[in-house]
Amino acid sequence: MKMIDIILEKRYGRELTDEQIAFFVKGVTDGSIPDYQVSSLLMAIVLNGMSEREMTTLTIEMSRSGDVNDLSFLEGIAVDKHSTGGVGDKVTPLLLPLLATYGIQSVKLSGRGLGYTGGTVDKFESIEGFECEIARKRFPELIKNTGMVISGQTPDLAPADKILYSLRDVTGTVDSIPLIASSIMSKKIAGGAKALVLDVTCGFGAFMKEESRARELSAAMIRIGEGAGIKTRAVVTDMDQPLGRNVGNTLEMQEVYDTLCGKGSKDVQIVVVELAFQLVRLAGKGMDLDDNELRIDLLKRLTDGRALEEYRKLIRSQGGVINEDGSPQYVDYPFDAMHINAPEDGYITNVRANLIGRASCTLGAGRFEKSDKIDFGAGVILCVKKGDKVKKGDTLCALCQGEKNPLPDADERLYSAFDLASKAFEIGPNPPKEKDPVIAVLPKKPFGVK
Amino acid sequence: MKMIDIILEKRYGRELTDEQIAFFVKGVTDGSIPDYQVSSLLMAIVLNGMSEREMTTLTIEMSRSGDVNDLSFLEGIAVDKHSTGGVGDKVTPLLLPLLATYGIQSVKLSGRGLGYTGGTVDKFESIEGFECEIARKRFPELIKNTGMVISGQTPDLAPADKILYSLRDVTGTVDSIPLIASSIMSKKIAGGAKALVLDVTCGFGAFMKEESRARELSAAMIRIGEGAGIKTRAVVTDMDQPLGRNVGNTLEMQEVYDTLCGKGSKDVQIVVVELAFQLVRLAGKGMDLDDNELRIDLLKRLTDGRALEEYRKLIRSQGGVINEDGSPQYVDYPFDAMHINAPEDGYITNVRANLIGRASCTLGAGRFEKSDKIDFGAGVILCVKKGDKVKKGDTLCALCQGEKNPLPDADERLYSAFDLASKAFEIGPNPPKEKDPVIAVLPKKPFGVK
Repeated sequence: MKMIDIILEKRYGRELTDEQIAFFVKGVTDGSIPDYQVSSLLMAIVLNGMSEREMTTLTIEMSRSGDVNDLSFLEGIAVDKHSTGGVGDKVTPLLLPLLATYGIQSVKLSGRGLGYTGGTVDKFESIEGFECEIARKRFPELIKNTGMVISGQTPDLAPADKILYSLRDVTGTVDSIPLIASSIMSKKIAGGAKALVLDVTCGFGAFMKEESRARELSAAMIRIGEGAGIKTRAVVTDMDQPLGRNVGNTLEMQEVYDTLCGKGSKDVQIVVVELAFQLVRLAGKGMDLDDNELRIDLLKRLTDGRALEEYRKLIRSQGGVINEDGSPQYVDYPFDAMHINAPEDGYITNVRANLIGRASCTLGAGRFEKSDKIDFGAGVILCVKKGDKVKKGDTLCALCQGEKNPLPDADERLYSAFDLASKAFEIGPNPPKEKDPVIAVLPKKPFGVK
Repeated sequence: MKMIDIILEKRYGRELTDEQIAFFVKGVTDGSIPDYQVSSLLMAIVLNGMSEREMTTLTIEMSRSGDVNDLSFLEGIAVDKHSTGGVGDKVTPLLLPLLATYGIQSVKLSGRGLGYTGGTVDKFESIEGFECEIARKRFPELIKNTGMVISGQTPDLAPADKILYSLRDVTGTVDSIPLIASSIMSKKIAGGAKALVLDVTCGFGAFMKEESRARELSAAMIRIGEGAGIKTRAVVTDMDQPLGRNVGNTLEMQEVYDTLCGKGSKDVQIVVVELAFQLVRLAGKGMDLDDNELRIDLLKRLTDGRALEEYRKLIRSQGGVINEDGSPQYVDYPFDAMHINAPEDGYITNVRANLIGRASCTLGAGRFEKSDKIDFGAGVILCVKKGDKVKKGDTLCALCQGEKNPLPDADERLYSAFDLASKAFEIGPNPPKEKDPVIAVLPKKPFGVK
């Protein structure tokens, strides 16, 4: 088999065979196929697409290109969750404790943030003492203690995907449903998931700007999941504006704590409950409740202290420090350095998530380069959300940096962030059309019907 | 300017600016753009195309990526000819002497053969003593002597094209009208041509299998030529069957000699006369003759000994040996090793040029790899052409190998070639539709009207 023939097949818009895809993934993994041939095929895939079978084969081959996690020590089905990235996305630290109240155990492998969407590992590491680099052999012990593990992603899972992703990043081949879907799903399969809920974000702050594309990506991932024997559901969520009120590391974990104390934003609650609902159903739990009752029950558990109790267990289990008042202790705390005020009366018609995300990243919450240091205290507190009525001079948001350890060029960053965040707020004379935080759940079929 | 942005522009099907194309060609030439980004852009160009302006800019930038030949020592306009490759293509050794009879001087830079279509340099080198590696500073002296130079291509012309071509070859991005057209035209522009006739072959033995594609390529090259200030004509010629009767190095040069002695095939005469006609017109010669008269005049000069006289001058001028009888002396002579006979009565409906070309190459006339040695005496003599009536047992062709220096594995090659050539002849009960060797001349407008 020759790589040039595989490229030509795809260049002429034909389907690759399973053998050709396996040859390609093997050659990528062992380095025997040169970069220039890989990138040529990637561009041909971007422009000529892939069939469902090709995507599924690509995904499965990538998932097998390195180690595969064995999660058989978990009680019940191994559930997992993935988000395609959002601003203010604090779903994971809420979801795991909520699932734990239903006795659902979960191992969550997460990444660090790069670019403006932030990473779950960074968020947890804003808690003093919290350790995210957990050796795989310790997973069963932690699961036995609390039913939950949060860990950084190990490099030996789906190495082919890692190689392809870094090449896609520099060859203009990121934006492709089959390549995005197979990249995400290969890591989930290698991670050992058997039931999966996908949070497919959609809007200004998401990679998928349009709902149609988010639905297309969802459908692709569901088909791959089904083809690989993983029960898969996708929840398309709104990312025009950030999720919740806080964006940043400590800031988001503070909002997590508030939410668990019953003082959270409605949009965060809705998204977390829907994702949890899907996984609880996939795990075959809560069968005595109908769909509506189960959602109400989940919202109760999220806000009445039961999930909070599990959350504290998780933090302690991975070395995190809890204060005497029951709240986590943070590495650094946000210092409210500057406000942005409304320039006129009106309704907030938009809070562009991409600009808030970039402002937060600029303040120090995220990395532009992998090696960048971050400021755990940095971020943005939104004082208004879309639809709110404001008067000229009202505070729209606060820009924060760490009290203890702001980055060396904090002032410069503050002014850049101010420029970015100022542009995020759109004010109009009329209230905007309301948009549900959960746009769609896929597949459409009623649960239990295959 | 960043290469990734250029790739993304083309990935989304947008036009590149002149500055982006110049940046790309410069980066290819100096090696600052990594191969994997180059091949990614090439595939995006293959699949999303290029506008006329983009093609022209790409061509001009590539033509300027190295040295540009100065042919100002030529009397009159610098004419050039290019063929997109064919089997049995002995046009150049006929065209140059024919033009010389009209006082048209020409410097022809040619390549060696790779793959089954053969190279003009190899054909001339089958003449004992003929030297094709001519230093550029010697061109004026040779032109002064005979008005003609045949030389191997110098590596310092259009180096960007050379780099791109070798990458295209291994990344499935050869088949693209804008890339083929800009590659050919960049070398012609750098070679110093001001008037150019393109022999665009079309059929089984050509890169362009379909007439529509050959016309499309012709149109692209004409538009680029016009954009770069070169008078350009394209002649689409039939390459379903080989041109003429002999395929191979010595064999083709023997047919050249026969043609100049008035004993040539009609198809060779027609193609050579048409190409010469276009260049004579572009050079502003023969203005006292109308089109028809000029073509008749050219055919006379080609066959009555006048072109032969110029041909002998060219050979002597570059060191080639002429026998006492006036024919060239060859490095090796074809030994008629095996015949293929007609398996049934009927009409020859096809002599597939690609199979004859591969048979000739397999016999030793061409190279599969750049470093392969060739057998100058090897090749195929066609005893029949399309449309001929044959009886069972008639000889269809003879397979030849060098009398003096066949390749070490000559016997094995002979049997492989036999298999290939046997499949080339199609015999049917009825005579096939006649096809003119010249399919079209482009642009359509009458000569002199722009």
